[in-house]
Amino acid sequence: MQGRYVHQELVRFTHTDPAGYVFFPRFFEMFQAAVEDWFSNCLGIPYAQRILTTRTGFPTAHIECDFLRPCRLGDVIGFELVLEAVGRTSYRLRFDGRVDGELRLRATLVIVSIDMQQGRPQPFAPDLRERMEAYLRVCQEGNPE
Amino acid sequence: MQGRYVHQELVRFTHTDPAGYVFFPRFFEMFQAAVEDWFSNCLGIPYAQRILTTRTGFPTAHIECDFLRPCRLGDVIGFELVLEAVGRTSYRLRFDGRVDGELRLRATLVIVSIDMQQGRPQPFAPDLRERMEAYLRVCQEGNPE
Amino acid sequence: MQGRYVHQELVRFTHTDPAGYVFFPRFFEMFQAAVEDWFSNCLGIPYAQRILTTRTGFPTAHIECDFLRPCRLGDVIGFELVLEAVGRTSYRLRFDGRVDGELRLRATLVIVSIDMQQGRPQPFAPDLRERMEAYLRVCQEGNPE
Amino acid sequence: MQGRYVHQELVRFTHTDPAGYVFFPRFFEMFQAAVEDWFSNCLGIPYAQRILTTRTGFPTAHIECDFLRPCRLGDVIGFELVLEAVGRTSYRLRFDGRVDGELRLRATLVIVSIDMQQGRPQPFAPDLRERMEAYLRVCQEGNPE
Repeated sequence: MQGRYVHQELVRFTHTDPAGYVFFPRFFEMFQAAVEDWFSNCLGIPYAQRILTTRTGFPTAHIECDFLRPCRLGDVIGFELVLEAVGRTSYRLRFDGRVDGELRLRATLVIVSIDMQQGRPQPFAPDLRERMEAYLRVCQEGNPE
Repeated sequence: MQGRYVHQELVRFTHTDPAGYVFFPRFFEMFQAAVEDWFSNCLGIPYAQRILTTRTGFPTAHIECDFLRPCRLGDVIGFELVLEAVGRTSYRLRFDGRVDGELRLRATLVIVSIDMQQGRPQPFAPDLRERMEAYLRVCQEGNPE
Repeated sequence: MQGRYVHQELVRFTHTDPAGYVFFPRFFEMFQAAVEDWFSNCLGIPYAQRILTTRTGFPTAHIECDFLRPCRLGDVIGFELVLEAVGRTSYRLRFDGRVDGELRLRATLVIVSIDMQQGRPQPFAPDLRERMEAYLRVCQEGNPE
Repeated sequence: MQGRYVHQELVRFTHTDPAGYVFFPRFFEMFQAAVEDWFSNCLGIPYAQRILTTRTGFPTAHIECDFLRPCRLGDVIGFELVLEAVGRTSYRLRFDGRVDGELRLRATLVIVSIDMQQGRPQPFAPDLRERMEAYLRVCQEGNPE
């Protein structure tokens, strides 16, 4: 866990609309992909396996998002993941999306841990909590913007 | 223009994730569809034609969304469109998503009118402004919640 | 069950690519939607309910598709569903996609009935088989093209 | 250009349906991504730049696809790209999708080069043709299956 995790996405045909820009719902698919890779590659908890074996789900409960400048076909967006808070059953994660260093969009998601059988919030598993708290410290120490 | 416009979406396979719930980025596709139909069917301004003939775009600049309860395969979501404000080059639209009368999600989007050639905000066309202001009045008169 | 079922789709922003045409994977989402509505509205078997209550799935095993002419934002595509064959655990369904009567694309899908627990083909439920055979007759009698 | 190009896709939440399998239209988004990366990384022709600067499009005209075994959340699919033929204005490309060496799906697409202004087929640019012919030879020499 060395510094803030950055998830990269190449803007593809799949993402773009008739204006040639990323169609905004596609950004949310990118956020989901970013979370999956952050779990697997940074926190060391394989996302798919965790979901399939423990029947835990991580739905999004709240979103705020500012689209500052559009992203186009061929752009490579780097989403920096900034963990802002970790509660008992939810965490708040910010995504700073940049292209060539320029901030294009910023989103904050509140994501909840649920028991998929019952559909109710459940506390994070101990290993996940530990890793998230470590990452929270990385973000708090982190590089000034 | 008789009361608030409600856009209906049947939750399909396309929308749902391995937990059997709507995968949250799909809601934003639904919001976009709701706006398109609201233009065409309620405001009387055919969305596709307007975009293709005037090279005006309507990207989303800001989103806030609360997911209160999940939606499942087979649910019919009614999105009530509440216009909250109309500015010179942008408007703020709220989506109250209900299933059988129960509020499942609520989102507010700020949507901007842009000149697609230049990528800059441009004032609403007079006919669009007029219709939006009429709809704004419908929403303000509207049923208290 | 009066004649061949036609499923209509309005081409939206969601569907279109930077060239302004429907991005081809979106057609397959339309086919899936068409099948769901055909089950529910024409065969009289509510698709979502059937899947959720019986744990039967209907994955696609084979696809052939010709894209003859592009479809654009604002086009209304009518997909005529032509049932070509019904086997013990699968059926073959053709989609003729037309805009203003002009054939734009034609696809044939082989769709299988499976037991979702085991992931194995299973014979159609009797009521579904009966309705499909009735629809097969409708298609065979059907209007010459 | 060293051997056949393999495009890898991790199966994510975005791709999967309520049965936990990849929802089949998502495979076509993967094929499109595979083509984009094959152009950029293997043929040495940056896909996005080529499209944006020359107004050339590469729509799909024909598809045949067999889904042999399902793919699940967390699977890594390797799509081997086998160029089968190159014509004046179109090429035929096969995708062999494997997970851990096991063939899960096989698709063949015919993809056309068009002038996006006119919407008409146009011959491949010389550099693209040259690279495709080189790749065709790689595939023909290629490993017997």
